[in-house]
Amino acid sequence: MAALADDFVADLREWIAIPSIGADPAHHGDVGRSAHWLADALRRDGWPDVRVWDTGPALPAVYACWPAADPDAPTVLVYGHHDVQPVDPVEQWDHPPFEATVVGEELFGRGASDDKGQVAMHLLAVKAHLAALGTDRPSVTLKLFVEGEEESGSPHLLRLIDDHRAELACDLVVFTDTPVYARDAPTICTGQRGVYGAEIVLTGGTSDVHSGRAGGSVPNPATAAARLVAALHDDKGRVTLRDFYADVVEPTDAERADYAALPFDEATWLANSGGAQALTGEEGWSTLERVWVRPTAEVNGIHSGYGGPGLKTIVPAEARIKLSFRLVPDQDPDQVARALRDFVAEHTPAGLHAEVLPAGDGAPPYAVDVTHPAVGALREVFEAAFEQPVRYSRTGGSGPAALLHQRIGVPVVYLGATLPDDRIHAPNERVVVPQLLRGAEAAARLWRLLPGRVS
Amino acid sequence: MAALADDFVADLREWIAIPSIGADPAHHGDVGRSAHWLADALRRDGWPDVRVWDTGPALPAVYACWPAADPDAPTVLVYGHHDVQPVDPVEQWDHPPFEATVVGEELFGRGASDDKGQVAMHLLAVKAHLAALGTDRPSVTLKLFVEGEEESGSPHLLRLIDDHRAELACDLVVFTDTPVYARDAPTICTGQRGVYGAEIVLTGGTSDVHSGRAGGSVPNPATAAARLVAALHDDKGRVTLRDFYADVVEPTDAERADYAALPFDEATWLANSGGAQALTGEEGWSTLERVWVRPTAEVNGIHSGYGGPGLKTIVPAEARIKLSFRLVPDQDPDQVARALRDFVAEHTPAGLHAEVLPAGDGAPPYAVDVTHPAVGALREVFEAAFEQPVRYSRTGGSGPAALLHQRIGVPVVYLGATLPDDRIHAPNERVVVPQLLRGAEAAARLWRLLPGRVS
Repeated sequence: MAALADDFVADLREWIAIPSIGADPAHHGDVGRSAHWLADALRRDGWPDVRVWDTGPALPAVYACWPAADPDAPTVLVYGHHDVQPVDPVEQWDHPPFEATVVGEELFGRGASDDKGQVAMHLLAVKAHLAALGTDRPSVTLKLFVEGEEESGSPHLLRLIDDHRAELACDLVVFTDTPVYARDAPTICTGQRGVYGAEIVLTGGTSDVHSGRAGGSVPNPATAAARLVAALHDDKGRVTLRDFYADVVEPTDAERADYAALPFDEATWLANSGGAQALTGEEGWSTLERVWVRPTAEVNGIHSGYGGPGLKTIVPAEARIKLSFRLVPDQDPDQVARALRDFVAEHTPAGLHAEVLPAGDGAPPYAVDVTHPAVGALREVFEAAFEQPVRYSRTGGSGPAALLHQRIGVPVVYLGATLPDDRIHAPNERVVVPQLLRGAEAAARLWRLLPGRVS
Repeated sequence: MAALADDFVADLREWIAIPSIGADPAHHGDVGRSAHWLADALRRDGWPDVRVWDTGPALPAVYACWPAADPDAPTVLVYGHHDVQPVDPVEQWDHPPFEATVVGEELFGRGASDDKGQVAMHLLAVKAHLAALGTDRPSVTLKLFVEGEEESGSPHLLRLIDDHRAELACDLVVFTDTPVYARDAPTICTGQRGVYGAEIVLTGGTSDVHSGRAGGSVPNPATAAARLVAALHDDKGRVTLRDFYADVVEPTDAERADYAALPFDEATWLANSGGAQALTGEEGWSTLERVWVRPTAEVNGIHSGYGGPGLKTIVPAEARIKLSFRLVPDQDPDQVARALRDFVAEHTPAGLHAEVLPAGDGAPPYAVDVTHPAVGALREVFEAAFEQPVRYSRTGGSGPAALLHQRIGVPVVYLGATLPDDRIHAPNERVVVPQLLRGAEAAARLWRLLPGRVS
């Protein structure tokens, strides 16, 4: 692997230089350039079938296939993405975000970790896999599917999958967009939370009114919004929506034991949580459990009335709440949406009008069946590559794993090697290069191990 | 009075044409022009001593004095203001705000009602008073004090008073910046609520954090802000600050009976309250009582986190609440400020930092002693001028009456004739000209009546 490392870093730097910010229409051309860069790299590596899917409406995605020597070998589809987050506030970057900079073991740049680095890791893994075999055909039929809209909530992923059913057919999806728990605690991710977002709009009058004129005599939408938010949790930190916990699958004792065995440093957790000053959350669960296996309701924003300097003594006409729920298996975003609408209706006082609007694209939760043989294989190759015991972890974020599972109809497992403190979505994103090299080694080993385990 | 009406309207239109918006530094020159317009008008009317106080830091104020023939006659200081509110959103005006337009009995323009119209009413009253007496010396020594910063919370009024103690010395202040209850229900205003404003800042981390990363494990300032606001009232609509009601002077039975006897139309009240859809408020009190004689806590604004399109799944770093309390005699704004600080400290969860900042200038509440002989005189002259029974009312807004009372050391009474639906502070401000003419008649009669009643 070390022999390939220099080229790997040089290639990744070239790719990072293309600012493929999918959320910004001004950069949509760059998303296309990024797709073609990847396609060219795959062709250089010898992938026999490489395609750029760029006929819209999805931003360009890349598909590649490298058939196994054995036609009966299983087919594995590696999923990743090549679009990146915006870079604002750009002045907080210590190095230009699109001029990847190496400092010791770290490579700084937008997309270094999320997700160009992990996709590049898989290109490297295939080279290493073939080199180890001394052949030009992998042990499994490898397919690569790298979309360009993940950071925008994968709005056209369903359509892409349905338009390319034959190409994407496989026996297993390997999802490569999650981190391990820590450098000294490599883990196999076994699930992501889902998300359902909504905006609640509470309207009183048709205009703000002077609080000297009417204050104390008419309902205040800001106060009503506050009461609604306050009612959303009970005093044990549990969400009060009807049947919110009815479908929650609790983690197994083995998973809880694994989580408890992971090193946990409160100060580091807080520092990585935007400099938060204390831990809190649902009673009866550890911090890792609260973030990985428990659902939440978070206020992402609340806005009403005057926010400028000094005082403006008004009763505001309107209040808006941005709310998102992180969901765990087997919660259903549609059921949560219905419960929220009922909750808002119950908590809207006379004289105010309430509307619940969907916000964002949402995603169902997903958890891996840890009894699937691929999971055991993953643990083996991780222990070999990282030379440490490997435990289970999850991630509190959301992604399209459930969608891939439902639509392609096969199990999804996670293979990621980045770190939670890579500052993805933030200034100074970086990747620790040895993590990617070890991840590539694990993947290279996995492709040898899967035939006979997965069919 | 009718003979003077045409000149009166022409003069008022000229004055309204000067956009004396005190809150906008770009219009500070206009505040000066407005002061000089008034000073010139007073000199034209024959006032022997007219001064513009424009040496700063206060925006220019106008002072005038017209000594009584009888050196033992009481001295009355009429207080008003010549600065006006901004005109945004200007596109909602049916007529240009600074080109006063007469439509039937209405005169439209910024300041027509608040407060140029009422100041002009007093100039007219003095002319009428002298004409009726057939002399050039009024029955009382009249002083006029018209400040230029009322719409900005009178930040330098204290300083103006202290710098001009001798000029402002008097036996009675007549405060002319309040409306009557309704056209068919003329009233004597007997009090204004005070106001105390504050901004509460709740801080969690040093930056927003991704809710997938940390959501459910760290305190959310937006949620904490909501809980704090929700805790501010009990289920009877009473403010829960410690000792909030301890110093509240309840209205007399006579006052409550007067309020109950006033015509009250719910639909009109709602329409005039920014199109609110229902009445609400503290249990056990009528709408008029809630706004006139009961203290309140209103959220004027609440802002935290994301407010743009779609969803941004963050735990915000900060939440800000703009809050104002309307106060009634004998509540003390300083005591309320202390109770609020304690309330916020009690309601700030671990891991959040809270700050309570003063916002706006605040004002103590004021109520007239209705047994003062000037009040009986006011009722008499109003009944004569308006040819209807006159009751007591109050206003829910705030102003510097308490400050004038405390600093000059004499009683303050209210003489105003405008209407609550004059849309002051809003587009399409207007004044009903016959109201000002009747108000002028009442004032002209009052100056004759006061000697022998007030000393």
